[in-house]
Amino acid sequence: MVAENSSVTHDLARLTVSLRWEDIPEAVRHEATRAFVNWVGCAVGGSDESTVITAIGALKPLFGAPQAQVLGTLVRCDVSHAALLNGISSHVRDFDDTHPTALHPSAPVFPALVALAEWKGISGAQLLHAFIIAVEAQTRLATSVLPEHYERGWHMTSTAGVFGAAIGSGVLLNLDEQRMRWAIGLAATQSSGLRDMFGSMTKSFHPGRAAQSGLVAALLAGEGFTSSDRSIEAIRGFGHVLSGTFDSSAVVDGFGSRFELLRNMYKPYACGLVMHAAIDAALQLREVRQLTVDQIERVDAEVSPSVLELTGKHEPTTGLEGKFSIFHAISVALIDGAAGESQFSDDAVARPAVVGLRKRIYARANPKVPKAAAELTISLHDGTRFSQKISAARGTVDRPLTEAELERKFRDQCSGRMPEKQVEPLLHACWELGRTPDISRVVRLATASD
Amino acid sequence: MVAENSSVTHDLARLTVSLRWEDIPEAVRHEATRAFVNWVGCAVGGSDESTVITAIGALKPLFGAPQAQVLGTLVRCDVSHAALLNGISSHVRDFDDTHPTALHPSAPVFPALVALAEWKGISGAQLLHAFIIAVEAQTRLATSVLPEHYERGWHMTSTAGVFGAAIGSGVLLNLDEQRMRWAIGLAATQSSGLRDMFGSMTKSFHPGRAAQSGLVAALLAGEGFTSSDRSIEAIRGFGHVLSGTFDSSAVVDGFGSRFELLRNMYKPYACGLVMHAAIDAALQLREVRQLTVDQIERVDAEVSPSVLELTGKHEPTTGLEGKFSIFHAISVALIDGAAGESQFSDDAVARPAVVGLRKRIYARANPKVPKAAAELTISLHDGTRFSQKISAARGTVDRPLTEAELERKFRDQCSGRMPEKQVEPLLHACWELGRTPDISRVVRLATASD
Repeated sequence: MVAENSSVTHDLARLTVSLRWEDIPEAVRHEATRAFVNWVGCAVGGSDESTVITAIGALKPLFGAPQAQVLGTLVRCDVSHAALLNGISSHVRDFDDTHPTALHPSAPVFPALVALAEWKGISGAQLLHAFIIAVEAQTRLATSVLPEHYERGWHMTSTAGVFGAAIGSGVLLNLDEQRMRWAIGLAATQSSGLRDMFGSMTKSFHPGRAAQSGLVAALLAGEGFTSSDRSIEAIRGFGHVLSGTFDSSAVVDGFGSRFELLRNMYKPYACGLVMHAAIDAALQLREVRQLTVDQIERVDAEVSPSVLELTGKHEPTTGLEGKFSIFHAISVALIDGAAGESQFSDDAVARPAVVGLRKRIYARANPKVPKAAAELTISLHDGTRFSQKISAARGTVDRPLTEAELERKFRDQCSGRMPEKQVEPLLHACWELGRTPDISRVVRLATASD
Repeated sequence: MVAENSSVTHDLARLTVSLRWEDIPEAVRHEATRAFVNWVGCAVGGSDESTVITAIGALKPLFGAPQAQVLGTLVRCDVSHAALLNGISSHVRDFDDTHPTALHPSAPVFPALVALAEWKGISGAQLLHAFIIAVEAQTRLATSVLPEHYERGWHMTSTAGVFGAAIGSGVLLNLDEQRMRWAIGLAATQSSGLRDMFGSMTKSFHPGRAAQSGLVAALLAGEGFTSSDRSIEAIRGFGHVLSGTFDSSAVVDGFGSRFELLRNMYKPYACGLVMHAAIDAALQLREVRQLTVDQIERVDAEVSPSVLELTGKHEPTTGLEGKFSIFHAISVALIDGAAGESQFSDDAVARPAVVGLRKRIYARANPKVPKAAAELTISLHDGTRFSQKISAARGTVDRPLTEAELERKFRDQCSGRMPEKQVEPLLHACWELGRTPDISRVVRLATASD
């Protein structure tokens, strides 16, 4: 813990306004593009969820000028509402990216930056630049208040995400150091979001509100709206008020040299991370052994105890419950060779073949198995047995998604949400973001059919 | 402390949707009208502060349809921005009302309700009804998290005020009990505001943001946007996350029978409450003894130690510093016979007569003198001495402002902000609020000159 008179708010503001595009390694820039591809897919894919439609219905009377697009829809509105609504759709399916702190980096940040970039005609490279700085700042702020902050009940994607949105927006608006401090202060004082909301629509409202609050913070600060200069480390500032274990030294530790964005993870499957290793094993066995469901007598999974604690539901009755059933996940993976959103629908959990196989799946908790690992053994009616061990699930830091896997996820999410002929051009435009002089072309491709 | 499985969120939602206008005593309704008179004066008076002008400048590009008025200006915008901006102007001069919890009840609530009432064509009685319920709820929520909440660094006018705005808006929108619970949940998860912002523009941003967030919470909940059903008492809900001393029994204690609004206080003077008793004494001596400044040799004040701790500045150089100088306050009160905003301007602290008398004022801390009390002794050049003891300052619970005093404050605040001929009709319309079928007439009178 650094002494009370340290000034990490000053340090952070200075670093965020001075880190140049030229100073950012190519691998980091590329990771930002991968995050963008994943985010656009999530936002488009989530845009027809009732959570998003309900929010649009409630807030439409308040919309201002059509400055920015709500992705996956035909709705255009002012940047503040676009940030809110895209933030909700980014996170509503719990399919967005994850940093090892448990913060979801893109959902509170891209919605603010993309809205602002569209409105102001900002280039794709500037957008990626601002995103990288935002992620580096917010993940460090999350680290500085862990572990007590999260344990106490704060949802970090919102509480730290608002800083990312404010700082990223501040970079796009070219705030000077003083104004960046004020933007940080305005973010700090709007930092909120309770974990008690998990399981309701309000969970995905969190990154939306963080995106909106951060954007407004930067707009206000840009006009000279003053706030505290020491909002992070002050005794009545963010760190001490929202955590009992605040460590101010984490806030700028390695900023600009160690890139947290390189530890970003993208989920391949539309369910909880703890089930991913078992799904990986099922998909591999199915493909390599060319298995069909009628050959299978039983399946035995050996998993970390946390898998059964979190996803031990034997007979899910809704798609949402299916996301918390390791038995359902393995069953659909073996039958469909996939574990996307359509494998976790209300219809999918009721399909007779899925139910039939689900009953022949057994899971055993083994404390020696790490969370990201699993072993699956399939016994066939003819007595043959095949086993597959996964030590690091697809999408984790040790086994990142390949570009092809990211693209497959993207296509699954966008399919049905827009004319099919738009999907590939949109995907291509996302990969080309860093070379786009004006991001409005990308955004125009991310709209629904008429 | 009530057991964890209590359900104060359910209780609070039920009480707020079921307390009828007929059940509210006339004295409480009248107090709500007094609060409205005081609030309109504050919002109009504060509307030309640079804090408000800067916020309008920054956010104007985001404004939606002209649904509601920003008081004291010619600006009309969507209800969400009107709530934000009126919230800022209500509080920017620190001249708004105060409940004994230290929460300022009107600033986060009236801005949301007045905007909504104007938009939806709601009557003045309905507005007062919703305001009363909002104040009863938010002051109890503040009590439930005190003392640790405030000591830790939360600004209650914002953290508890967002509940008042959400609940009051919910009453105006006729939310049912389930939707009121969701509105409360959406308020809980947006509860924020750090005391570290005091001294910057962001302090008055707090009630504005609370008003806006609460209004949006009610609009979302009204359309069926779900949140937690136990957001107040849940282990990861508002009470436990934002306080180490949460007492859930306070949340609904005496709701509907004991009215906290009756303990609301209105400041007569444009400075910190601790100086009010000394100002009272100075004004009374000046009037009763017909004193002029050239007669006075010296002034001795005996005050509570907290007065010197908070306002012990001998030589203020700006209007803001003047608000923290007991010497300046007594000096202007004796010279001008007033202690309004113009007595605490940059010009006022530099006036030679004020500076001259200020140097002849002496203050002594006496631990036996209560905070709301003071004794002043004036020694004249001819050897005469007059003393005046004040045991309860004007505007405190034990010595409420009279209607005439409220009106004087109102006129001082509105004067110069609108055509003079509009001031009296506006004041009259405020007093008549409970009999107004549509509040837009009141709001139209609260606009600036062209």
